Amino acid sequence: MDKLLKKNERIDDLHIKDLKIIQNSKGFCFGIDAVLLTSFVELRNKSKVVDLGTGTGIIPILLAGKSTNSIITGIELQQEVADMALRSVALNGLENRVKILNIDLKKATDYIPVNEFDVVTANPPYMHNKGLINLEDKKAISRHEIMCTLEDVIKTASKLLKHHGRFFMVHRPQRLVDIMVLCRRYKLEPKRLQFVQPSSGKRPNLLMIDCKKAAQPELKILDPVVVYNGQGEYTDQLLELYNKKSLEKRGDLNEG
Amino acid sequence: MDKLLKKNERIDDLHIKDLKIIQNSKGFCFGIDAVLLTSFVELRNKSKVVDLGTGTGIIPILLAGKSTNSIITGIELQQEVADMALRSVALNGLENRVKILNIDLKKATDYIPVNEFDVVTANPPYMHNKGLINLEDKKAISRHEIMCTLEDVIKTASKLLKHHGRFFMVHRPQRLVDIMVLCRRYKLEPKRLQFVQPSSGKRPNLLMIDCKKAAQPELKILDPVVVYNGQGEYTDQLLELYNKKSLEKRGDLNEG
Repeated sequence: MDKLLKKNERIDDLHIKDLKIIQNSKGFCFGIDAVLLTSFVELRNKSKVVDLGTGTGIIPILLAGKSTNSIITGIELQQEVADMALRSVALNGLENRVKILNIDLKKATDYIPVNEFDVVTANPPYMHNKGLINLEDKKAISRHEIMCTLEDVIKTASKLLKHHGRFFMVHRPQRLVDIMVLCRRYKLEPKRLQFVQPSSGKRPNLLMIDCKKAAQPELKILDPVVVYNGQGEYTDQLLELYNKKSLEKRGDLNEG
Repeated sequence: MDKLLKKNERIDDLHIKDLKIIQNSKGFCFGIDAVLLTSFVELRNKSKVVDLGTGTGIIPILLAGKSTNSIITGIELQQEVADMALRSVALNGLENRVKILNIDLKKATDYIPVNEFDVVTANPPYMHNKGLINLEDKKAISRHEIMCTLEDVIKTASKLLKHHGRFFMVHRPQRLVDIMVLCRRYKLEPKRLQFVQPSSGKRPNLLMIDCKKAAQPELKILDPVVVYNGQGEYTDQLLELYNKKSLEKRGDLNEG
């Protein structure tokens, strides 16, 4: 395993079609948000997909598991993280369908074509950069807008998508105004919005948005996803969205 | 009662501090949205309030009941409806605190001062004007953007409010993108957003938004209001927001 795993890394079984992922125990591990976003994404036959800020490649790998012939490009700035994603792709034998580019998403169009993709996904940093963050901290780069802003993500998504292509993003509800203003500015019209409530009757702590490039305005709000039931267990709804066995095992799913 | 009531009109008891309202059985009667909005509004001592498109005056009258010293101006374009509101104000002896202006809200600043009000409220028409509507139909004018657009309402609210004054509106979730884009354009920063779900786990069919003029961005989404429980009865949460007796009597509360 010397070649496959580096220090502090481990292989996690995703419990979907035998897919696995390499994660660093001391780094940013994927959370329920990536899982929820993947279930929210609608792929058509032979979709061409870009995942912006792909991290360990969790979204491309789960999307590859959800479809049989989509072609997915994951873009990740951090060299060590992109390297982990590349090894996970190889571990799953997905080299023909999942590419990992170790580039800055702000320069994505220097490497891949504009106006050509069917789907762009993003699970970007949620928090404003307040200027108090260690720039060497890889977890911080995944969580704060240090290396890219929300506007960079939305602007890049819009450039890459073809006419009527779709942009799927998971984010925090407190950024909803910014999200909507920026999406409309860059011609990604929000069409579907789904909130994630930690439990029934409680305020949402995540949202998923589905925007369509150059579409007419008309937002549909979906029934919310409720994560926990009254007993503190995952709801049937959530378990159906992913995979019962996997979620029960990962009691520690972080949320951002 | 000859002077007080015209043809098809009736007096409804609001079951709050003996307040009453005159409504026309064949016209637009107030709904749960006006009640919810009133409970959502935060008034300070001696608040100066404007209600845009006040209709029968339900919001000014309920706000007068909720506070002891606020001064409220209701603006209503339709002469017959404004006249009904005026008579309801007199019926409740609120002439000193509630004014009704029979003017076009787009010209409000010709009649009342700019940058001076603490609070602006609105329960505006929800629907785009699709051009298929009878312009003589008073219900249609209350429901469709015939005489004013969402932009007119938000622009006017922004003009009337003082620095850090607050704008409270009830609307439909499918217009959320328009609402947020326009609010930010006119410097009314959305600070609190509350969705109204018909029942637990179901998509919201109303929203209430609280914007603060010239404030910093940071949206807080509140716990949702859930209207009906599993047995099809009003939830305790809803009954507490209004008045149990009143709601139980008005089984026919319309929602828009």
